[in-house]
Amino acid sequence: MMSSEKAHKAVDLSHHLSDLSKRRQVSPLKGLAKYMGNPNIIALAGGMPHPSYFPFADVSASALVSDSFSLEPKQESNSLSWVWKLFGAGKEKTNPITIPKYAADPANEINLAVALQYGTAQGIIPLQKFIKEFAGKVYQPAYSDFATLVHTGNTDGWSRAVLTLCNPGEMFITEEWTYPSAVFASKPYGVTPVAVAMDSEGMRSDDLHKLLAEWNEEERGAKRPHVMYTVPVGQNPSGATMGEQRKKEIYDICVKFDVIIVEDDPYYFLQQGVYKPKSERSAAAIKHDEAKFIANLAPSYLKFDYQGRVIRLDTFSKYVAPGSRLGFFTCSPQMAERLERQGETTTQAPCGFGQSLIAQLLTTWKYDGYVRWLHGLAIEYRSRRDFFIDTFFEEFHVRQSYSTRGVWAGCDVYDCYPKPQGMVEKTFERKWLSFVPPTSGMFIWLAMDFEAHPSFKEGEEESLEVQLWTNLAEAGLLVAPGWYFAADDEVNDKGKGHFRISFSNAEFSQMKKAIKIFSEIVKEFYKEH
Amino acid sequence: MMSSEKAHKAVDLSHHLSDLSKRRQVSPLKGLAKYMGNPNIIALAGGMPHPSYFPFADVSASALVSDSFSLEPKQESNSLSWVWKLFGAGKEKTNPITIPKYAADPANEINLAVALQYGTAQGIIPLQKFIKEFAGKVYQPAYSDFATLVHTGNTDGWSRAVLTLCNPGEMFITEEWTYPSAVFASKPYGVTPVAVAMDSEGMRSDDLHKLLAEWNEEERGAKRPHVMYTVPVGQNPSGATMGEQRKKEIYDICVKFDVIIVEDDPYYFLQQGVYKPKSERSAAAIKHDEAKFIANLAPSYLKFDYQGRVIRLDTFSKYVAPGSRLGFFTCSPQMAERLERQGETTTQAPCGFGQSLIAQLLTTWKYDGYVRWLHGLAIEYRSRRDFFIDTFFEEFHVRQSYSTRGVWAGCDVYDCYPKPQGMVEKTFERKWLSFVPPTSGMFIWLAMDFEAHPSFKEGEEESLEVQLWTNLAEAGLLVAPGWYFAADDEVNDKGKGHFRISFSNAEFSQMKKAIKIFSEIVKEFYKEH
Repeated sequence: MMSSEKAHKAVDLSHHLSDLSKRRQVSPLKGLAKYMGNPNIIALAGGMPHPSYFPFADVSASALVSDSFSLEPKQESNSLSWVWKLFGAGKEKTNPITIPKYAADPANEINLAVALQYGTAQGIIPLQKFIKEFAGKVYQPAYSDFATLVHTGNTDGWSRAVLTLCNPGEMFITEEWTYPSAVFASKPYGVTPVAVAMDSEGMRSDDLHKLLAEWNEEERGAKRPHVMYTVPVGQNPSGATMGEQRKKEIYDICVKFDVIIVEDDPYYFLQQGVYKPKSERSAAAIKHDEAKFIANLAPSYLKFDYQGRVIRLDTFSKYVAPGSRLGFFTCSPQMAERLERQGETTTQAPCGFGQSLIAQLLTTWKYDGYVRWLHGLAIEYRSRRDFFIDTFFEEFHVRQSYSTRGVWAGCDVYDCYPKPQGMVEKTFERKWLSFVPPTSGMFIWLAMDFEAHPSFKEGEEESLEVQLWTNLAEAGLLVAPGWYFAADDEVNDKGKGHFRISFSNAEFSQMKKAIKIFSEIVKEFYKEH
Repeated sequence: MMSSEKAHKAVDLSHHLSDLSKRRQVSPLKGLAKYMGNPNIIALAGGMPHPSYFPFADVSASALVSDSFSLEPKQESNSLSWVWKLFGAGKEKTNPITIPKYAADPANEINLAVALQYGTAQGIIPLQKFIKEFAGKVYQPAYSDFATLVHTGNTDGWSRAVLTLCNPGEMFITEEWTYPSAVFASKPYGVTPVAVAMDSEGMRSDDLHKLLAEWNEEERGAKRPHVMYTVPVGQNPSGATMGEQRKKEIYDICVKFDVIIVEDDPYYFLQQGVYKPKSERSAAAIKHDEAKFIANLAPSYLKFDYQGRVIRLDTFSKYVAPGSRLGFFTCSPQMAERLERQGETTTQAPCGFGQSLIAQLLTTWKYDGYVRWLHGLAIEYRSRRDFFIDTFFEEFHVRQSYSTRGVWAGCDVYDCYPKPQGMVEKTFERKWLSFVPPTSGMFIWLAMDFEAHPSFKEGEEESLEVQLWTNLAEAGLLVAPGWYFAADDEVNDKGKGHFRISFSNAEFSQMKKAIKIFSEIVKEFYKEH
């Protein structure tokens, strides 16, 4: 399947392994492994219950069909409300899937006797196969011997990567705004983030190069970072998505300075394209076929990873359900082996109920069906994003501006001013907030212009942010405060506050109501006291 | 529910927390928690997919009835073979259980919209409630404010406990033979086991006291251990079960020397009673009601834990299925809080498919039904143990001896000699192997008398063990070698080798065949060269 240009293999990067990882033994089962799976052997070595003691004779589900979601962007009225769902449930088109306790070919047919038994930390074979094929087709790693390995979600994945790669006292590179749990997971181990400036594509390559080239170990109190944590698509919280060119630049810098890239990419398939204001949009169905949908996605770092220095984290949280607690690494076999050992003494394999239901769903849908499902989801999120941003136009006076400098250089920025009151249009000097419509993911990242606040003083950005966040919460709207996402204390965004607002979950009517509350509270906040 | 004598609460034991655990922040969600769950609030803070994007409209299962297994000890012929199961599946008595996507009362009725969504590391509420009630009724902790908290199985539980309690360079106390993964999990962190001698009840209290009282920090290169890892019921690998008196002694020693007890108890409900040779057994059904079944179980350390220094690990691996990857801590609220934080940045909550199916099963069965199921399983394992030990009588000349010293002091020991050949009985000087029939768990722990081997030399026990293990594997029988379970290199059992043989999984016919292979290979091994 691999083309001849990929005949080369991942290089040896074992010098990146942490002391902890180096101390980890080979698989505890290794001694037995030679004899395992031999049908002529009577295995009385493990403490495995007989499958007749599993109290489930079968597990089944009504699985949605893979084309459940239209490729035609929907408008507000199409949205199915939760209440409707509650009383009208069962209207979706579903197919029954069943996982029997026993199968004639237990290794290759999904069955509870295997999925619910002790197994290796690699998970059940049909799931392994699907994932390996999927990663190969979609991400196209630039080397031939890439490996995939299940984990229990990207938080587990990153946590394992930290322990496998970092020693206490080390720093890792990340975007200046980042996923808080990534920091919460590493900090207690004495592994701390160092921030790289961002722009509309996420991490800046020039700033990254500067950071690494000018790294002063003494000044920083840590050796030059050799691990990067990055969310390159629908970045959390900024929503930024990184294109091919930037990724190549960053990859080359990582080669130059010998940095391992941990690519956390939970929103990868929620790439939605550029936002267009309502009047400019067409409601026509997307004509793309699924191959084109995949081909149009921003490439993974894996595609440029000719050395095998990328550890990619994928999760089913956003495409099946967060409660799946199932995801996978794609990386070199060397790293996969160490990550597997790390998993063996914690989670072992992911839950067998989840593994078997998801594997049965995916193998029933097949690769094409799953891609169709992902495509449908991307369109759903596009509709949500579009609707949500549209509501800003209703509550604010929105002006588009083209930014030529700062974090949003090269972007169409949406600046929100107060709506003109009554018949007389008042000219306002200052905008209240701005955002760049995201092209991927679940979030709008709002930059509040606190300099417009009557009692603003430099250095009080965070306290204003907290004050406004509390006002919003008290008024019935919960958003995520910007301070929560700061990778370190040095984030420098003078005069600004930030909020991350999600459009992934609420009903359309609630989103509308939310922006109404938001505009009212913001108005009150900015008004002269 | 708590009686007045338990009005006191767990004491403050925060000085046991590791540096890592102390560095862990309070729940990342804490700032938002105040507003969460308020139905009047529009929550746009989290990156949660809308539940209509979960591709399962419902999940269901054919759940075995709770009295599926007879309380009448079965004989060989009753055993359902795997092959029978495969072609005759569906003959079990089952009831359908279903988890709908939506529920009218989503917090208290099990539903996919909640179970498959992001949630706290505490898991879904109906499962929390069942577990808390179950732990209270069965283990009866000696203090009133005990907490329970889900984890993804006892390996995860122990791994989290190590990181929460131990700093690198510390040692923890354990039995001289112990669960290998417990050592594999801790060693890479620089946390190593120190062994306490065992007898027929498991860990010896006198040796424990001696170890702690005479601890020499300089000599040992580590401060006196403040954490114990112990498997008190159906101990892995020895099968020993500890009674009330010994547990009290050990608990008091742990109070005196300020040691936290991590009680890993996966085999707790597989307590089977004393083995009786076939001729002495009755096939009458057990007359006990379920309350008596519970009352007759060896008590948990929790029952004596008036200070809250026990962290008990329970798992559904042996009673539902290993693939459940679901278990729970029972401990003080202080420890539960730290263990929860540890979980938040790794596994988060256990898999929602598993959580909801198991919670639905348990709440359908109810407490009494689950206890009935556990009782049925205990009888099943008793039948398996009895049958397995019976087969030794067929292949060896078994003599009972009453041991007055050594590891099996006070026990009926079963000594296995070669069967007399032909008509003439030959008197053998030496026995080949011995074991004490376990009263709990899944394993027979065999002590091989290598001094009976013609080329035995002291110090070569392990190489003989490996040789015999390999001979067995090559002949088609896989058992677990003793060396694998040694807590440290100081295990002193002169002239002996060990094997752990499991009776939990194989068909009865296979067990019979296994002991036939075993006796043949052992015979060959011991014969004069």
